[in-house]
Amino acid sequence: MTVSPERVSPPGRVADPAEGITAEELRLAGRNHAMPLEALRDDVTPPGLHYLLTHYDMPAVDAASWRLGVSGKVAEPVELTLDELRSLPRHTVRVTLECAGNGRAALTPRPVSQPWLDGAVGTADWTGARLADVLARAVPDPDAVDVVLTGHDHGVERGVEQDYARGLPLEEALAPDVLVAYEMNGAPLPVQHGFPARVVVPGWYGMTSVKWLRSVTVVDHPFDGFQNRAYRLRQDADEEGVPVTRIEPRALLEPPGVAEFATRARFLSAGPVVLRGRAWSGWAPVDRVEVSCDDGATWTDADLGPAEHRWAWRSFTVAWVAPPGLHRLRVRAHDASGRVQPDLPPWNRGGFVNNTCQPVVVQVRPA
Amino acid sequence: MTVSPERVSPPGRVADPAEGITAEELRLAGRNHAMPLEALRDDVTPPGLHYLLTHYDMPAVDAASWRLGVSGKVAEPVELTLDELRSLPRHTVRVTLECAGNGRAALTPRPVSQPWLDGAVGTADWTGARLADVLARAVPDPDAVDVVLTGHDHGVERGVEQDYARGLPLEEALAPDVLVAYEMNGAPLPVQHGFPARVVVPGWYGMTSVKWLRSVTVVDHPFDGFQNRAYRLRQDADEEGVPVTRIEPRALLEPPGVAEFATRARFLSAGPVVLRGRAWSGWAPVDRVEVSCDDGATWTDADLGPAEHRWAWRSFTVAWVAPPGLHRLRVRAHDASGRVQPDLPPWNRGGFVNNTCQPVVVQVRPA
Repeated sequence: MTVSPERVSPPGRVADPAEGITAEELRLAGRNHAMPLEALRDDVTPPGLHYLLTHYDMPAVDAASWRLGVSGKVAEPVELTLDELRSLPRHTVRVTLECAGNGRAALTPRPVSQPWLDGAVGTADWTGARLADVLARAVPDPDAVDVVLTGHDHGVERGVEQDYARGLPLEEALAPDVLVAYEMNGAPLPVQHGFPARVVVPGWYGMTSVKWLRSVTVVDHPFDGFQNRAYRLRQDADEEGVPVTRIEPRALLEPPGVAEFATRARFLSAGPVVLRGRAWSGWAPVDRVEVSCDDGATWTDADLGPAEHRWAWRSFTVAWVAPPGLHRLRVRAHDASGRVQPDLPPWNRGGFVNNTCQPVVVQVRPA
Repeated sequence: MTVSPERVSPPGRVADPAEGITAEELRLAGRNHAMPLEALRDDVTPPGLHYLLTHYDMPAVDAASWRLGVSGKVAEPVELTLDELRSLPRHTVRVTLECAGNGRAALTPRPVSQPWLDGAVGTADWTGARLADVLARAVPDPDAVDVVLTGHDHGVERGVEQDYARGLPLEEALAPDVLVAYEMNGAPLPVQHGFPARVVVPGWYGMTSVKWLRSVTVVDHPFDGFQNRAYRLRQDADEEGVPVTRIEPRALLEPPGVAEFATRARFLSAGPVVLRGRAWSGWAPVDRVEVSCDDGATWTDADLGPAEHRWAWRSFTVAWVAPPGLHRLRVRAHDASGRVQPDLPPWNRGGFVNNTCQPVVVQVRPA
């Protein structure tokens, strides 16, 4: 078998209309796992089930020799050990993280990348120091604009060898719930979630929550690195595009009944059933969730659970008397900023932010 | 969108020659995650990275009310609480588990099911009671033939609603390393690995290591349930076929260098490099691993690491002086029973046991 060099790190592309998922997309799908939807039953996603997206390889970082450098446009560059990071005031935040590419594989035509359907989400209790407290140790200059967050993960993307790095506006970085986290659900970070320390930016898509954090660099201009250019909404490849930032609203149903192995369709007995799920938005609190049991012809408002954790998903329930037959359920979330999930997928070349409504097919048997 | 009923639980099929991975296979790939190959660096797979295959939904089982029933052809049927199970002699075994479908998606034509490439594997330290000690509590009849292991996982497959259940010959069930495990790597089982207790049958493909174990039923005939009929090697759908049992030999390289995001190809600088990996077999200890750096034209014997854990993978290393250019590495394992990985995939309709050699594409840059 020969391999042509241009296939080794190809430019981004959109799949041909009749092109199924490729072997390379499938390899990404095997590595970068979604949260199984039955895990929507839990407030906090059980360890190992939280979604995971790693651009390159997961680095093995030695905690004893790990240092976090804070430098650039600052009065006093510092280097923190893990113990020093842990000595800063400790803060825990429950956060729903979602991949910006969630929903990509449902787009037509399909942007070729990590082929998420709808489960690229998860919720955890993250504990760490505030990024604001870390930055305060170094004292950013008055003309600071962005912070550049760089991880130990290193690889090649679209022909460019790079450390994974993202710029974040300083004012966002100083928000009180933005963490340099060293614990997930009360235990040290698992390797795949950024051991020994990572950023967590609540309300933003996951690309900004840099894992395996190695440095924070303060700059006096908007950072224009590879990942900040990659995560943009564009119709054409040569467009400047709009940066991907906060999480658009989305609701997911915990699929009712029992599963079919191959199709993941659901079987249910006719009669009353309570449909359950979770909804979230990074722009404003979720204030309404609607459920349709007839593929969008009619919608019913769900009952919302408590909203105690601003940055975590909110539970919802709705009663349904399931009639025999084949049904297609849909669900959609609204938030307090007026955003609502669209009926048609919002297409862009990168396949980002496709928060169109989740369909769930249910075969209801006579009781 | 209409959904035709025959699509809800279709019979098994083989993909058309030009048919890419389907949306349904992709949904399975997102749920049932592979082990990222960089985790081959670890003797024991870090929590959350072990491969995972669940036929239906992961059930949420309450440990306090959980009971393990042992009945059927026995002198004294018993029901054990989790505390009673834990009071039996405690035994820990390091085991490499692999899915019988590992390699399925690399077959041509492709059997349509969970589309594994090569990472459906993982190694853990499992702790529990010996299944032999559990059976001894009930005293199997002298004419006992099989034990039927049934889980709490329940769903629909090929049109049949069922609890997940597997028969295992009694003499295999009595082997001293077959466990009813309640700990994985020193902690209670994660929900996705069968909380609160599961079977672990070292050396066998994973389908026999029933998770969320609810009952052990002793029978006086070979059990012929759905899963025992499903996991068979067949060329045609109407063949009786040969049962899938023990794990065929396989070696995997930890891909060297750094990864390209989209293709997972590897970049490496020219010069000396140590290639590393792991190899295993359920039939007999691995006693030879060969590595080819020229796509199979020539092969070099690797140095094998210690063989302290019979049921776990064995490490290997081989030195390579990487010349500039594009190379395709391959690796193959032999075991003491004379089995060796084949050059061509052993095709069957279920897509089981494809242990053909792993290819790793490496782009070597001038030093």
